[in-house]
Amino acid sequence: MTIECPIYYEEESAQHWIDAFARQCPHLDVKDWQQIERPEDAHYGIVWRPSAEFFARFPNLKAVLNLGAGVDGILRHPQLPDSVEVIRLENAGMGAQMNEYFAYHVMHYHRHMDRYNTQQDNAQWQVFPGIPAKDFRVGILGLGELGSSVATCLQGLGYTLCGWSRSAKNLDGVKCYAGAEQLDQFLGQVDALCCLLPLTDSTRDILNKDNMSKLPKGAVIINAARGEHLVEEDLVELLNNGHLRGAVVDTLRTEPLPANNPLWKQPGLIITPHCAAQSWLQPSVEQIGNNIDAMLAGQRPSGVVERNRGY
Amino acid sequence: MTIECPIYYEEESAQHWIDAFARQCPHLDVKDWQQIERPEDAHYGIVWRPSAEFFARFPNLKAVLNLGAGVDGILRHPQLPDSVEVIRLENAGMGAQMNEYFAYHVMHYHRHMDRYNTQQDNAQWQVFPGIPAKDFRVGILGLGELGSSVATCLQGLGYTLCGWSRSAKNLDGVKCYAGAEQLDQFLGQVDALCCLLPLTDSTRDILNKDNMSKLPKGAVIINAARGEHLVEEDLVELLNNGHLRGAVVDTLRTEPLPANNPLWKQPGLIITPHCAAQSWLQPSVEQIGNNIDAMLAGQRPSGVVERNRGY
Repeated sequence: MTIECPIYYEEESAQHWIDAFARQCPHLDVKDWQQIERPEDAHYGIVWRPSAEFFARFPNLKAVLNLGAGVDGILRHPQLPDSVEVIRLENAGMGAQMNEYFAYHVMHYHRHMDRYNTQQDNAQWQVFPGIPAKDFRVGILGLGELGSSVATCLQGLGYTLCGWSRSAKNLDGVKCYAGAEQLDQFLGQVDALCCLLPLTDSTRDILNKDNMSKLPKGAVIINAARGEHLVEEDLVELLNNGHLRGAVVDTLRTEPLPANNPLWKQPGLIITPHCAAQSWLQPSVEQIGNNIDAMLAGQRPSGVVERNRGY
Repeated sequence: MTIECPIYYEEESAQHWIDAFARQCPHLDVKDWQQIERPEDAHYGIVWRPSAEFFARFPNLKAVLNLGAGVDGILRHPQLPDSVEVIRLENAGMGAQMNEYFAYHVMHYHRHMDRYNTQQDNAQWQVFPGIPAKDFRVGILGLGELGSSVATCLQGLGYTLCGWSRSAKNLDGVKCYAGAEQLDQFLGQVDALCCLLPLTDSTRDILNKDNMSKLPKGAVIINAARGEHLVEEDLVELLNNGHLRGAVVDTLRTEPLPANNPLWKQPGLIITPHCAAQSWLQPSVEQIGNNIDAMLAGQRPSGVVERNRGY
């Protein structure tokens, strides 16, 4: 017996996912959600930003398997039934990509590449004094799977790491802070602040003027979590008044960022189009297939979201 | 008895070096070369780009200790006596800096940052498909101390590495090629070519039109060795005709690059002002002090250059 699983994926590459499931999980019959023949028998939905119609069509869903690590969007979905388990992708190649994204941008500032790029524009040749990586302090906001991966990678490159998370964590060689009461202490010692938090009610707008002002003057911010973590007008103010040396954002309040948005031209700001970590086909399909198999066998899948916590 | 050692360092920071030797090697009396009281007793000179007068003033030099890894300049010095040993710095913090420099620029291209920077200039939001690091092929020209260090670092970041050197080398997990007869085979499989060669008669102009054309279309070049390795007009031609996607040069034929040089504005070219790896004070002074102590004790110092080989 094959198991029909509806997939909801708006973008053009939906067929790539369907083909990959056919290749890697032939016992599952993963189909476009509109082509499922017995919707009432569908228990496991594979989704990326599903519509309200999706949930209306499948009344007996037990779980939705999200094609990404961030589940803030689906948890806010007004049609998501309370009884449905939400399962997120846990790494699926995203750890390595996040490592690269943050390592690249930390080195961008540590190695003065922002200054050298400006010099090249002005045909100027001047060397800035180098500093050892251990004297460049990197702070990770969010020590989940991806944040921990980035911390370990940057440590391997010689940087001095500290981290902050909601609940206390332990990571070798990383000075860990936890909870609202330790946030200021954490921020005060960070040259490059890397945001990898889940988006929840308590982390929304965490990168606001008040918190960003607690970073040392000349610090930089790199946000590859969610646009809603960052108050964009506060960032602009702190870039323009020189408190922040620079910032990198991979996620924005409005995506795609409209062509007429002034952020595109903001001095000191690097914008990338939500590309820091893409869910890769092969490992994502493998993880989702294993999770569906686990549930079919009455076992607990991995990556189950605690809905009251938000991640 | 203190040992007078003349130091020749034209730039303003000479006093930093003198102070560091006073702190770290108090038994050596390291002084500006013009202030040495008994020039005929000076056996060990510490130099960066010494003048002809330097060699004229110290007739009994046994060795010069170079304040950098590259010794092409001093070996070409017309006044360098045949009897003087040339000793180069071997790492002194430069390994870590080279790792960062190459890792940063390899990721720049692997992660499409050249394209995303252009998109930002045009207020465009478009994601390019990501590829795993293992599918991005990095080739290292020169597998000495620094080249091997870069290869190991990039392997740790997941890239697929191959390397080429004059004489056969063995490096774990790095496909090694050697000698002129294997150069083409090496070049044909490299997406990002990293040059860390010593400058010798056989490596001068090695990055010429003929060799660079053997790279796959769309490859990039990163040169942090010497400007003389690269034929600049050939690079410009291959950038302009689209064979090369981009290039990074930390070293140029003329340094500092004059403000009116058209290379500053060359599309696809990133220029940094010979800053990829600076000799750091503390480890450099320690290494030079140890080498002078070894020679005073009749032992062999490390980093002795084979003058007929050129490095």
